[in-house]
Amino acid sequence: MAYMLLQEPADAVQTAVDAINADLGILWIIIAAILVFFMQAGFTLVETGFTSAKNAGNIIMKNIMDLAIGSLMFWVVGYSIMYGGETILGGFMRNPAELAFFNQDDWHNLFFQTVFCATAATIVSGAVAGRFKFSSYLIISVLLTTFIYPVSGSWLWPFDDQAWLNNLGFIDFAGSTIVHAVGGFAALVAAKLVGPRIGKYGPNGEVNVIRGHNLLLGALGVFILWLGWFGFNGGSQLAFGGDDSIAVGSVIINTNIAAAIGAVSALFLTWIRYGKPDISMTLNGALAGLVGITAGCGNVDAFGSLAIGLICGIVVVLSIEFIDKKLKIDDPVGAISVHGVCGFLGTVLVGVFATEGGVLYGGGFGQLGVQFLGSISMIGWSVLASFIVLFIVKKTIGLRVSEKEEVEGLDVHEHGTAAYYNGEDEE
Amino acid sequence: MAYMLLQEPADAVQTAVDAINADLGILWIIIAAILVFFMQAGFTLVETGFTSAKNAGNIIMKNIMDLAIGSLMFWVVGYSIMYGGETILGGFMRNPAELAFFNQDDWHNLFFQTVFCATAATIVSGAVAGRFKFSSYLIISVLLTTFIYPVSGSWLWPFDDQAWLNNLGFIDFAGSTIVHAVGGFAALVAAKLVGPRIGKYGPNGEVNVIRGHNLLLGALGVFILWLGWFGFNGGSQLAFGGDDSIAVGSVIINTNIAAAIGAVSALFLTWIRYGKPDISMTLNGALAGLVGITAGCGNVDAFGSLAIGLICGIVVVLSIEFIDKKLKIDDPVGAISVHGVCGFLGTVLVGVFATEGGVLYGGGFGQLGVQFLGSISMIGWSVLASFIVLFIVKKTIGLRVSEKEEVEGLDVHEHGTAAYYNGEDEE
Amino acid sequence: MAYMLLQEPADAVQTAVDAINADLGILWIIIAAILVFFMQAGFTLVETGFTSAKNAGNIIMKNIMDLAIGSLMFWVVGYSIMYGGETILGGFMRNPAELAFFNQDDWHNLFFQTVFCATAATIVSGAVAGRFKFSSYLIISVLLTTFIYPVSGSWLWPFDDQAWLNNLGFIDFAGSTIVHAVGGFAALVAAKLVGPRIGKYGPNGEVNVIRGHNLLLGALGVFILWLGWFGFNGGSQLAFGGDDSIAVGSVIINTNIAAAIGAVSALFLTWIRYGKPDISMTLNGALAGLVGITAGCGNVDAFGSLAIGLICGIVVVLSIEFIDKKLKIDDPVGAISVHGVCGFLGTVLVGVFATEGGVLYGGGFGQLGVQFLGSISMIGWSVLASFIVLFIVKKTIGLRVSEKEEVEGLDVHEHGTAAYYNGEDEE
Repeated sequence: MAYMLLQEPADAVQTAVDAINADLGILWIIIAAILVFFMQAGFTLVETGFTSAKNAGNIIMKNIMDLAIGSLMFWVVGYSIMYGGETILGGFMRNPAELAFFNQDDWHNLFFQTVFCATAATIVSGAVAGRFKFSSYLIISVLLTTFIYPVSGSWLWPFDDQAWLNNLGFIDFAGSTIVHAVGGFAALVAAKLVGPRIGKYGPNGEVNVIRGHNLLLGALGVFILWLGWFGFNGGSQLAFGGDDSIAVGSVIINTNIAAAIGAVSALFLTWIRYGKPDISMTLNGALAGLVGITAGCGNVDAFGSLAIGLICGIVVVLSIEFIDKKLKIDDPVGAISVHGVCGFLGTVLVGVFATEGGVLYGGGFGQLGVQFLGSISMIGWSVLASFIVLFIVKKTIGLRVSEKEEVEGLDVHEHGTAAYYNGEDEE
Repeated sequence: MAYMLLQEPADAVQTAVDAINADLGILWIIIAAILVFFMQAGFTLVETGFTSAKNAGNIIMKNIMDLAIGSLMFWVVGYSIMYGGETILGGFMRNPAELAFFNQDDWHNLFFQTVFCATAATIVSGAVAGRFKFSSYLIISVLLTTFIYPVSGSWLWPFDDQAWLNNLGFIDFAGSTIVHAVGGFAALVAAKLVGPRIGKYGPNGEVNVIRGHNLLLGALGVFILWLGWFGFNGGSQLAFGGDDSIAVGSVIINTNIAAAIGAVSALFLTWIRYGKPDISMTLNGALAGLVGITAGCGNVDAFGSLAIGLICGIVVVLSIEFIDKKLKIDDPVGAISVHGVCGFLGTVLVGVFATEGGVLYGGGFGQLGVQFLGSISMIGWSVLASFIVLFIVKKTIGLRVSEKEEVEGLDVHEHGTAAYYNGEDEE
Repeated sequence: MAYMLLQEPADAVQTAVDAINADLGILWIIIAAILVFFMQAGFTLVETGFTSAKNAGNIIMKNIMDLAIGSLMFWVVGYSIMYGGETILGGFMRNPAELAFFNQDDWHNLFFQTVFCATAATIVSGAVAGRFKFSSYLIISVLLTTFIYPVSGSWLWPFDDQAWLNNLGFIDFAGSTIVHAVGGFAALVAAKLVGPRIGKYGPNGEVNVIRGHNLLLGALGVFILWLGWFGFNGGSQLAFGGDDSIAVGSVIINTNIAAAIGAVSALFLTWIRYGKPDISMTLNGALAGLVGITAGCGNVDAFGSLAIGLICGIVVVLSIEFIDKKLKIDDPVGAISVHGVCGFLGTVLVGVFATEGGVLYGGGFGQLGVQFLGSISMIGWSVLASFIVLFIVKKTIGLRVSEKEEVEGLDVHEHGTAAYYNGEDEE
């Protein structure tokens, strides 16, 4: 009897502790999601600050709509495709008929996943800034949040035995590939299909710089993104309490180290290459470190984070130059390099630096292979799906505004006003 | 004895769980209050961005003072009137002599309520931008935070049997009426009494547009407000842990859905009406959805949120046009429509969409009547009290700056400097 | 046996409660640290907004690097010096060989301390804006985050019996001295050694105003700093749950009251002195109140907070005038007065207003003396150490850019681009 008495209260304590840990997890997920939500403001500021003033209003509208339409479509359709019922079509996606979106008890999770989805869509916006038709952009945004992102996301993040990349052991903790590379390579397709801005590439092969109009707001955007990333990566622990609390602290420091060394390495690389430390490249270096560590922040230690951030900070500079000058794809904010290239790279590097299974930690090449396969699969899907969508839109309503609209600015032509008004008041 | 042994530890567990849930609640309230605090920055950016550059500094000062003076006055007086002791004057307000502001153990609540109060005051600022005397504005701000807002707030939010609207079953979860309509209709009175900006209405009945100077900062403000609203509505659960955790997640998704559909519906409505999707109307659509869902976010489901956000996103566009063109009341940022009209509307619509008691859910018209009565009562009080205050100020020190000051800008005349300096340095 | 049975479950409950309270503390520290992180954006906006447009890009770079380099150096070296093992050199610092930075279980603490350290470094940036060499700035920033800040920090904040100022009972709850005065007096040394901006002081003793280019962004920065300070001070409770929850609420209200009255008192003082309420002084008044209350926010009550905020709001105006006009040290943003003077003042005033030990609460002059001694010791260290570093740099690679670079702007010369681009696109 003494045994029974001791057991039962202990059970009661354990039950209470489990319930409270669940509450701690919900609280942390909500807070993290609010931080990720704020990243939409960061993306808006980076994209506008790094591009021309005459398109600022259009960029506001694209980003607000990524969030607004994305919130609605992901709730009604995307969430069910990504986290719905059993897989269908041979593991291709979840059965959306088993409506995940009805269960209002689970909505801290829906909120967290919604803001991730909106992030993926927004990445495309930066790469096509200044010449993309607003109506066509809305179509791409809807397709991305409703279908393209949820399909590849379903291959891993339900973290159950029906997710084929989960079964293979693919690691993408917070979405270097699922969010950033999927968005970044859709951005590559979109930028390629829409073509460069007028004046970007001269008739004799010149590569011109089209300067951003407000680096300070761009920098504010980067601070906001860096801030939001603590929610992005830290929240992806999806729990809090006990070991999870410790893990979240570790994830956050890993994230911060990668961002810091990414900024520092881009700064010194540009200092060496260009003779002066470059502002926008340094800012992109921080973002590259953040994108790169997103896959592995829960699986590498601080030295791995340092290495991944360092590599991404260097690669992003070289990649932006390469895409701009060699591939001659016009990506006004460097979104393809930051999110696409460094998202892929960061995912693969988990196979090198993961403390369990990484090449450098005696794990052989198995994990590296899985990382490569998983990332390439999702990127391949994103390229294929977004190409089909974009190609159809291009051949029907068109992707691009008229030359006159582009030269005079999308704000006036697409939205009937300029974002700035510095003249005399009409009073 | 066995019975006693089993009971006592269980009691100990329950006591511990209750204490921890209280802590979770305090933590969430503090975080939510910090988010609401940030809304002051959002209001400042929206108001400045949507108005002329020459008054930006004045707007900064008004908003900083709403927060600073509001924090002090609400602490010393307002909080006691709203949450003090027994009701006095037949339920009109609480007895402030039973000083609520002395109890330092309760100050997570004081902080949460303080930032709500400052929000109500700030709403007025937008509607009178560009011609209101700074000294007179401070008087209005003090009266609002010290007296007007706390009085009507006391009718419901102490949530006890002395709050007459609580006894009637009035629902205003996070303050569509208590905060937004009270502020919004005080703004209406102030905008009417101070009159339109010079040049807004021509001698032959023309309605001129006085353009905002920086839509990008206005958009940043809207992102910050949307962000802060997760604290505004989510924190109004006033608890966390167990069912409350689930409820907070639901409140947040309801809030996000209403904001999203509000933006989308305003976008498409303006696209249809004006031929182009309008930037500032879309931004106001998001805010309208947020204001509208604030009353019911804890009492409607996601489809109710969708409906309320949709209605508010459409109504705000029509209301801004109506007030601007028909009533010819000059409201530079649309504050009356966003906060006043949609605050009222959102409160009343709880009577339609509340899952318990709503007309559409078989509840009959009782709740709808209560919602109407409660909202009208508070709005009536706000209109009456703010009219008296504003009328007295108008007849004594005056509400309005001189014509010269208005034309040249309030910044230079009221504060001795312009907010922007683009010329050559004096170096 | 009954006794034993009753005890054991109670022990189990207590163990569980302790574990959960630890988790609550970790969660709050992480959230508070994220808020403090955001202060870097606030500092960047205040510094740029209050200074010339031509140096905005350089200011971005300095602030990003304070954060990036600070994060790395504090992790690898500074944290170990401040919180490492036993003290060495007679209590001068901790033994960094007992590597604190290896313990990944503790990284919520590392994160919280890292963002504090970055704050101290960033204070210097404002005071030397517009004429300091970027490369030299990086050297100062590294030394501050690696060595100067951690050394004096180690005298109190490990809160153990090896911290000599802890043994004396020195109170600096969240770092009025440890962070702000240490940063502020290093800023004084740097501003003195680098000299005033060209044109600041005329040949006949004139004191010229070099106007800030964007007060709106400066104000946004102040809102962000005020926001972040709730994490700065509230998080410094370093725990949550039970009495700690109540204490955090109290700390936050104290913080808000001091900021509010600081803004209000600066507003009215400038209204009286200059005839108009001054925008930048009012903003600095809020910051002064925040800096001042940082030392005592856990040890004074609300009336003490009111007094400290009031004093700091007045002193900051007089101090800025005195340093500008009498000392003729050019501090473009008032950082020396806000952080240095009010940091010192706020620390000393704890000896007056602390509810336990303060002069006004019957504690005699003992605490006041300790406050004075502790603050002066840390400030003395900061002045000495930063002077040595800056003097060496001045005599070797130099502190100052060339006259041409300064006049034309640091952005173009140090970074190869301007932060703003308002001309025609190159398209």
